[in-house]
Parts: sequence; structure tokens; C-alpha cells
Amino acid sequence: MANEKNVSKAVISRLPRYYRTLRELADQGTGRISSKELAEQMDLTASQIRQDLSCFGGFGQQGYGYSVDKLIVELERILGVAGSQRAILLGVGNLGRALLRNFDFSYCGVRPIAAFDTAPSVIGSDFRGIQVHALHELEEFCERERPDIAVLCVPADKAQSAAERLVRDGIRGIWNFSNVSLKEDVLGVPVQDVHFSDSLMTLCYRMKDTDPFEFGE
Amino acid sequence: MANEKNVSKAVISRLPRYYRTLRELADQGTGRISSKELAEQMDLTASQIRQDLSCFGGFGQQGYGYSVDKLIVELERILGVAGSQRAILLGVGNLGRALLRNFDFSYCGVRPIAAFDTAPSVIGSDFRGIQVHALHELEEFCERERPDIAVLCVPADKAQSAAERLVRDGIRGIWNFSNVSLKEDVLGVPVQDVHFSDSLMTLCYRMKDTDPFEFGE
Repeated sequence: MANEKNVSKAVISRLPRYYRTLRELADQGTGRISSKELAEQMDLTASQIRQDLSCFGGFGQQGYGYSVDKLIVELERILGVAGSQRAILLGVGNLGRALLRNFDFSYCGVRPIAAFDTAPSVIGSDFRGIQVHALHELEEFCERERPDIAVLCVPADKAQSAAERLVRDGIRGIWNFSNVSLKEDVLGVPVQDVHFSDSLMTLCYRMKDTDPFEFGE
Repeated sequence: MANEKNVSKAVISRLPRYYRTLRELADQGTGRISSKELAEQMDLTASQIRQDLSCFGGFGQQGYGYSVDKLIVELERILGVAGSQRAILLGVGNLGRALLRNFDFSYCGVRPIAAFDTAPSVIGSDFRGIQVHALHELEEFCERERPDIAVLCVPADKAQSAAERLVRDGIRGIWNFSNVSLKEDVLGVPVQDVHFSDSLMTLCYRMKDTDPFEFGE
């Protein structure tokens, strides 16, 4: 673990993709994989793979490759996803419901324990065992249950004040779907923004090469 | 544009973030910015910024910096987001509804023109002017309207076959929310997967440094 501190942001940003690819390989029954095969799966170079994984003590063996299961366990430790963090969700609109109903939190080692909203129509309802509470119960709940993560699905204009309230209530990390950049330095806890637009833009960029007009239509 | 082909994937992956940051700056009334200031905003180094932007003909002037508006226009051209691509959405569950109701497609130069589902309860309804059609009307619609992009919000077990059908119908790019990796080489068009888990994992990783137990609790 000694050299983890020196790992570049670029490597860190690739770790979830390594984890996802390796979990898919394990699900398909793949027990071991060479850096060349993993490179093809991930659209990286083999030397890049070897370099990235060596940062975290993942060393392949000549003629054997990497053990998929061992890498998964190692990545879970590094990513901190094996720790069973407890999450609450704020804002049970369409997006909040989609996450409560369909997102596999356990894949990331996270357990949702409650949701909060202000709308009487949704308070008291239940999504896969997660109950929706009235927002005014937030403080009491946090004091009692001490959740780690808040999933923020509130409207953009309510996001910063909600985030500040959550931090006051002891939340240590915010997964932000509110489509507004939160001031991390003000909050003092990590905020991970989910920007749908980034991936749609990347798609548009990649589609430029397949523009039908280029084929002389 | 001559040197765009040689731009690395790492640079490309940063472009949407550049675009987002610059748009935020423009909204705040910032007309120009130095590489140093932009670096602070984006948590990169100034030399990294200068190197990235020079790939795309963005050259700052000594003592002046970069023109925010010019960079935005340049990035829009490069990203291909100024082209007004037309999109359809498949699967009007909670996530599909959240996108139709709240996501700003126009920010990415994309215009949603229709949605499709199989559930009678949702067919015929309207989200911000986007009508939900019966899925069996898909072929006729695509032949008539020739949409470019499909937003895939169907259940995981239906995703691959839906994607293949869309490509047969002439779709040129897939924005995939179905939480399953689609075989891009089979489809023959770009697929951009949205993996919520990647950002939640990154959050968990970043929270490791703020573990309360480290402060001797």
C-alpha cells in the first residue's frame, strides 16, 4: 500500500473500469487473463495495463497472466468498495426512483438505508425495502444511523444548500446527480458529480467519424 | 483540423469537462482566462491545459489568456455538438422519464424527437413536447424521420437485441443506460455506456482519505 499515494489521477480514474471489466470476466468464468487480452477488452495497450496494475501490486506471471479473482479482491480493497458504506438518498423524483429501484448499490459495496423527500405523495412509500422519510426527519435519522454517503437527486437550485445541510449532519461523501457543480472546498467532503452530458458529448464526438455525408450520400 | 486525428484518447476524454467548465465560466460572465486559472478550476496543471488546448488550435495570448467564447465555439466544433443531432429514446421507465423531463439535451446539441415504449399506460403521453409512441411504430418512424442517436433505457436483458434493431433502423450512435456492455463491434456504431457505478466507486475511493477512524475516533 506504500506506493498508493503516488498513483496518478489518470490511473485512479481507470480503476472502476478495470473493476467492471474484471467482474464481467469473472462472471463469464474467466479465471486468468494476460495483459494482452485485457488490453484488447479495454482498448488500452498491454504495457499500459502492466504499468497500471503494478501500481497496486498486481503482478502477472510470465506465461500465466493475471488471476482475475485476485485482481478483483485487490481492486476492491484499493477502491474502498468492500467496506459496506451506508447511503441515504435525497429527492425521490424519477431519477431517485430509478436508482432506488434498479441501481445495484451492492456492486460498489454501498448499502442504501433510507430516502428522503418533501412530497407527501411519496413519503412513506417503499422501494426494494428502502423507506421514504419526510425531509424534516433527516437530522434525527443521521444522528441515530450515521450514514456515510448521500445520493443527491434534488433540483439544481436546492443542491448546494442540501449538500451543506448533509455535511452538517455528518455525511462524508456526496454522489451528486443534481446537475450542478457543488463547491467541494466549501463542503469539505468529496463530491462526485454525475454529468450525463459528458458521455453524450463523447458519443457525438465519436459519431463524427461515421457521418453519412462522408460516404458521399 | 489537420492534427485532430493524432489526439490521444486521454485528451478527448477531457474535452467534455473543458466544455462544461468553460460554459460555466461564460455563464458567470468570464470573458477570458489564463491557463493557470483554468488549471485551478479543473484541478489540472497549467502546462497540461496549454498542451491539451494546443491540440485543437486553442492558443492563449501572453498576458491575455484564452478567450472563453472562442474556446467554447472551437470545442463545439471539435466535439460535434453543434450539429443538432436528432435523438429517440427507448424505454420510458423512471430513468427514461427523468431524462425526458430534466436532461438538457440541447446543451450537447442534441434534439430528442420521440420516445418509444411497450406499456399502454405510457404510450401517447407527452414529456416536454416529446411524445411516447408504441414500440411497433419504431421502423416506420425511423424510415420517415431518420434519427441519429438512440437513448437506450430498456432493461438489461433487452438491451443487445434492441440495439441491433436500432442499428438496422439506421441509428448511428447509442447512448446506453441499460447497465450492460453492448458489443460495439457487432453493432458497428459507437456506443457510449453510462456506468453509474464508476462514479460511485470513485467517490468511495476518495472517501478513504476521510475515514473518521483515521482521526482516532
